[in-house]
Amino acid sequence: MASALDVAQQDLAVYADRLVRLQAEMDRTGIDLTLVGPSSDFRYLTGFDAHLSERMTLLIVPRSGPVSVVVPMLEAPLILSRRELFDISAWTETEAPWERAASLMELADGGSGTTIAVGDQLWSIFLLRLQATIPRANWIPATPTMRPLRMHKDERECELLREVSRRTDQAWEEFIANDRIAGLTERQAMALLRDRTAARGLTIHGGICASGPNSASPHHHTGDRVIAPGDSVIFDWGGTLEGYHSDVTRTVHVGPPSDEYRTVYDTVRRANQAAYEAVRPGVACQDIDRAARDVITEAGYGDAFIHRVGHGLGLDIHEEPYMVSGNELPLAPGMVFSDEPGIYLDGRFGVRIEDTVICLEDGGDRINDATRDLIEMN
Amino acid sequence: MASALDVAQQDLAVYADRLVRLQAEMDRTGIDLTLVGPSSDFRYLTGFDAHLSERMTLLIVPRSGPVSVVVPMLEAPLILSRRELFDISAWTETEAPWERAASLMELADGGSGTTIAVGDQLWSIFLLRLQATIPRANWIPATPTMRPLRMHKDERECELLREVSRRTDQAWEEFIANDRIAGLTERQAMALLRDRTAARGLTIHGGICASGPNSASPHHHTGDRVIAPGDSVIFDWGGTLEGYHSDVTRTVHVGPPSDEYRTVYDTVRRANQAAYEAVRPGVACQDIDRAARDVITEAGYGDAFIHRVGHGLGLDIHEEPYMVSGNELPLAPGMVFSDEPGIYLDGRFGVRIEDTVICLEDGGDRINDATRDLIEMN
Repeated sequence: MASALDVAQQDLAVYADRLVRLQAEMDRTGIDLTLVGPSSDFRYLTGFDAHLSERMTLLIVPRSGPVSVVVPMLEAPLILSRRELFDISAWTETEAPWERAASLMELADGGSGTTIAVGDQLWSIFLLRLQATIPRANWIPATPTMRPLRMHKDERECELLREVSRRTDQAWEEFIANDRIAGLTERQAMALLRDRTAARGLTIHGGICASGPNSASPHHHTGDRVIAPGDSVIFDWGGTLEGYHSDVTRTVHVGPPSDEYRTVYDTVRRANQAAYEAVRPGVACQDIDRAARDVITEAGYGDAFIHRVGHGLGLDIHEEPYMVSGNELPLAPGMVFSDEPGIYLDGRFGVRIEDTVICLEDGGDRINDATRDLIEMN
Repeated sequence: MASALDVAQQDLAVYADRLVRLQAEMDRTGIDLTLVGPSSDFRYLTGFDAHLSERMTLLIVPRSGPVSVVVPMLEAPLILSRRELFDISAWTETEAPWERAASLMELADGGSGTTIAVGDQLWSIFLLRLQATIPRANWIPATPTMRPLRMHKDERECELLREVSRRTDQAWEEFIANDRIAGLTERQAMALLRDRTAARGLTIHGGICASGPNSASPHHHTGDRVIAPGDSVIFDWGGTLEGYHSDVTRTVHVGPPSDEYRTVYDTVRRANQAAYEAVRPGVACQDIDRAARDVITEAGYGDAFIHRVGHGLGLDIHEEPYMVSGNELPLAPGMVFSDEPGIYLDGRFGVRIEDTVICLEDGGDRINDATRDLIEMN
């Protein structure tokens, strides 16, 4: 195996390249500075999982020249290993970090004529302080400049996404083969699946278990409802591996399902398949949504499919590109996104099936293999 | 026990009162609108733990009149139970939610002369979209208006904070009585303590285990270093109960400590005690910091205490008031904050001891009781 030092050097080359590509994109689009707080963008550009808190940490990328990081003094030791990538400017507890950041940006004229792009997830308190300190700059979202980088995954990213999906699938197969859910609360059932997923070395965030009528609420808050025979039960969960997400949904039925349920389930499964089969470079994102939506609409459930069919995923669980009506962006190799149609019958039940798909040169590659058959659990 | 419905009704009265108090504070300070995204502020004002994502959810509080929440359609069912508190405006997947929010604000003139306060943790992408949609408004942080509300905890909040601290202390006492850490990695040792804490019904976020020279880095990222005899080991962890945080730090020594270590430990313990004893209404926050710092400086370690002595905590693990040099805010009954001096000797070891303290009418009430004696673990 490579030593820790070798890995770190390889790592640094990856991140140095990403920073250079961001600067090229800034040059192309006329952006003078990009500011990124602790977030997936920060991690993507530096490999460092910066601490999000009321103490400002800020990555400052100028269109050309050296990159800087403003960091609280007590967290500076953590970032020293990456000092080949950027200058580190540590602030003490009694300083105003936005003033230090502004001075690093050398905008003595208050930013007149300067266009500053801001990472999506920077907290507003920091943006407002920076805006007050650099009053004449033009402030815009960094989304358009970060998107082309984040959206096209490299081989290492795809490898991590495949691995995290594979482990999540294994946890599901083990869960449906071994666990009983009737009589458990949603929280208890989710804990079983979560523990099986965590046991494979993944870090777990959240997870939805929605049972019976709750399954008709797509983002239900997992609660204390007791799962009972006759329930549809949606599990929407995943984990991260080195920051990269899996995001899987499977729906099971407790005991034998009705004919209507079978029809709804089959419709969602066909919609999931149709979206997957539509994936290839050049197809617009909205056409992936349409492929699934047409199946559901033809079956008479169009009004019950109340969300887009998918979202990109990577270091964020939801990121560009979004498979949604109106998004004309063409798919390209290296894009990774969810395929998750659903039907939600208010007050009764819902069904959703979700996989992750990578767009390759010759079509989609579905990286989840957990069974999509209609499973009856006890 | 009260039925779920009764509890909900009591809850709603609490949150309706908080919204009215925010409006009074806005009236007093000349703020026309307050905008809050998914965050502790949102939960404080509504009791609802809104989902933070790329889909905008926004609480809109005008200086007077009805409050609104703009929410993605697929999450609207979750918030219906709180519709007595605010109007709900659900947006569909193909809409621009900031335009819907702006139209609810009725600022046809682009916001001219309007002062809009923004919750600290709203993502910049939403603030930038709103600023572009309402170009002539005056945008300021909501911190000054939210602070007086959040900072003064009511009885129920103090009760939750006492309970979450009590359970965290119990986990610690059980850990030091039963577990061995020598030979474990930091990650493994942290997992033992975390599991004991979670077993008491708390939700766990993060947690630091910093061993040997790593203990000299206050915000060390828990890693794979193997804990060995002679190590100082800092555990800084906690959990939440109904969103309210505990935040405890204890430092142990593996095997018998040196005289120097005993001196450093004793100094930190005396600094922790001095800060605690300084707590009473009317004392400036910076004087709590000074009380601890004077002890450490007199012992000759002033340069090794590189952070403030404490932070408020409640629904956020770090919130107002901050016990830091320069903060002249006087303490008042109901304020809750950490008391966590530390000494960090670069490349060698660190020691930190952290408790949570509530300011009462007659002085401080320390709500952590886990032993502060120097513990030797194996």
